[in-house]
Amino acid sequence: MSRYFIQIKYKGTNYHGWQIQPNANSVQAEINTALNTLLKENISVTGAGRTDTGVHAKDFYAHFDTLTEFDADDLCYKLNCILPSDISCSRVFKVQNDFHARFSATERTYEYWISLNKNPFLTDAAYYFHQKLDVNKMNEAAKLLIQKTDFSCFSKSKTDTFTNDCDIREANWKEENNVLIFTISADRFLRNMVRAIVGTLLEIGIGKMEPNAITSIIASKNRSDAGTSVPAHGLYLTKIKYPQHV
Amino acid sequence: MSRYFIQIKYKGTNYHGWQIQPNANSVQAEINTALNTLLKENISVTGAGRTDTGVHAKDFYAHFDTLTEFDADDLCYKLNCILPSDISCSRVFKVQNDFHARFSATERTYEYWISLNKNPFLTDAAYYFHQKLDVNKMNEAAKLLIQKTDFSCFSKSKTDTFTNDCDIREANWKEENNVLIFTISADRFLRNMVRAIVGTLLEIGIGKMEPNAITSIIASKNRSDAGTSVPAHGLYLTKIKYPQHV
Repeated sequence: MSRYFIQIKYKGTNYHGWQIQPNANSVQAEINTALNTLLKENISVTGAGRTDTGVHAKDFYAHFDTLTEFDADDLCYKLNCILPSDISCSRVFKVQNDFHARFSATERTYEYWISLNKNPFLTDAAYYFHQKLDVNKMNEAAKLLIQKTDFSCFSKSKTDTFTNDCDIREANWKEENNVLIFTISADRFLRNMVRAIVGTLLEIGIGKMEPNAITSIIASKNRSDAGTSVPAHGLYLTKIKYPQHV
Repeated sequence: MSRYFIQIKYKGTNYHGWQIQPNANSVQAEINTALNTLLKENISVTGAGRTDTGVHAKDFYAHFDTLTEFDADDLCYKLNCILPSDISCSRVFKVQNDFHARFSATERTYEYWISLNKNPFLTDAAYYFHQKLDVNKMNEAAKLLIQKTDFSCFSKSKTDTFTNDCDIREANWKEENNVLIFTISADRFLRNMVRAIVGTLLEIGIGKMEPNAITSIIASKNRSDAGTSVPAHGLYLTKIKYPQHV
């Protein structure tokens, strides 16, 4: 048996997220179906994590085990022929059998895109926010996120994680052509965490809270102290780090 | 009576082009409806030209005449509130009464986007072309287009234009992040012209013709000597030049 990694991109607009669910489109189901067709074997891929309905991925990894022998580049090429136009395969490659798309990952990076004006070309790709924002204050607040601590305040209340500690290593805003992009990296993220963080930073940006409010929100461990979550269609998973190979 | 220009952007995917037609969505109809609602007057806008079904515009102008007094910035703001998400207004401004969106324009620029790999984020925004292309040869051929002459060879056969002469002033390819962008500027374009030119340059890019074949194709004035038209969804109207004001 051999284990393979598959590196993919997807536009999340038409999917109920990564994870297979009954009676709903999912990226995972599309990949499984395509691999089953090509390898004539019952393949089930394990993703690096879950993305919610409508969230995009510019760089996502999944692994699968197979007994079939094949040329990895050829499989990637054929996957692109049969996968829908909103999912693409960048690479298929063999890994050690204990290498795991989810558990071997050491860092994830997300971006959140905010369009500062109405842009017909970013309808599904960025959240249009028309209130005036103080980006300096948002960056001041973002800096206070960079620490290893309990981030329960930004998590969906009922989750089954054993700990809510995350090690946030990068968090900043930059503006490019009227699009504000928030980049955040951490060893792991809690459910809905990035969207709750962005919602909170927007409340700081419009002057509803001061930047240092972030510190007391984190200390509260209370989701209702933080801001409202922003919509899914501005969120991108952009990078997953692995200790080797990838 | 006063004449106003309106500067807009639209994603053409959901429209049967700019021009109003019975039983089909059009950008012009959306703008008319929005202006009628806001100005409570029967307004009909005149566009800078027609774009075909599925073609996008990053910078398009139209004019309209009205007896109503209004604040132009406020009208632009309100248009953005009621126009669909795939059409936006950048500016509304007063012009002289003889200033015409179509006839006063002195130059138009189009871009054609080709994605060199399968890209889920460019599904409606670029033509995915997976054959290997010799961009140097395509640029060599593009240079031969820069002249003022009869371009019937790239025109839909039955049109009612009084002349097929166009003055092409710029034509070149550049590559950015696996996207090939063709930029072409001229005083005017014939129907389907840019898509026919791009199709011909692609045939040169894959080695089916040599770059200097362009010269004899132009001389032939025969549409069937040129290449097949490329799909609409990679085409963008990106700039319209006016002698003043704009």
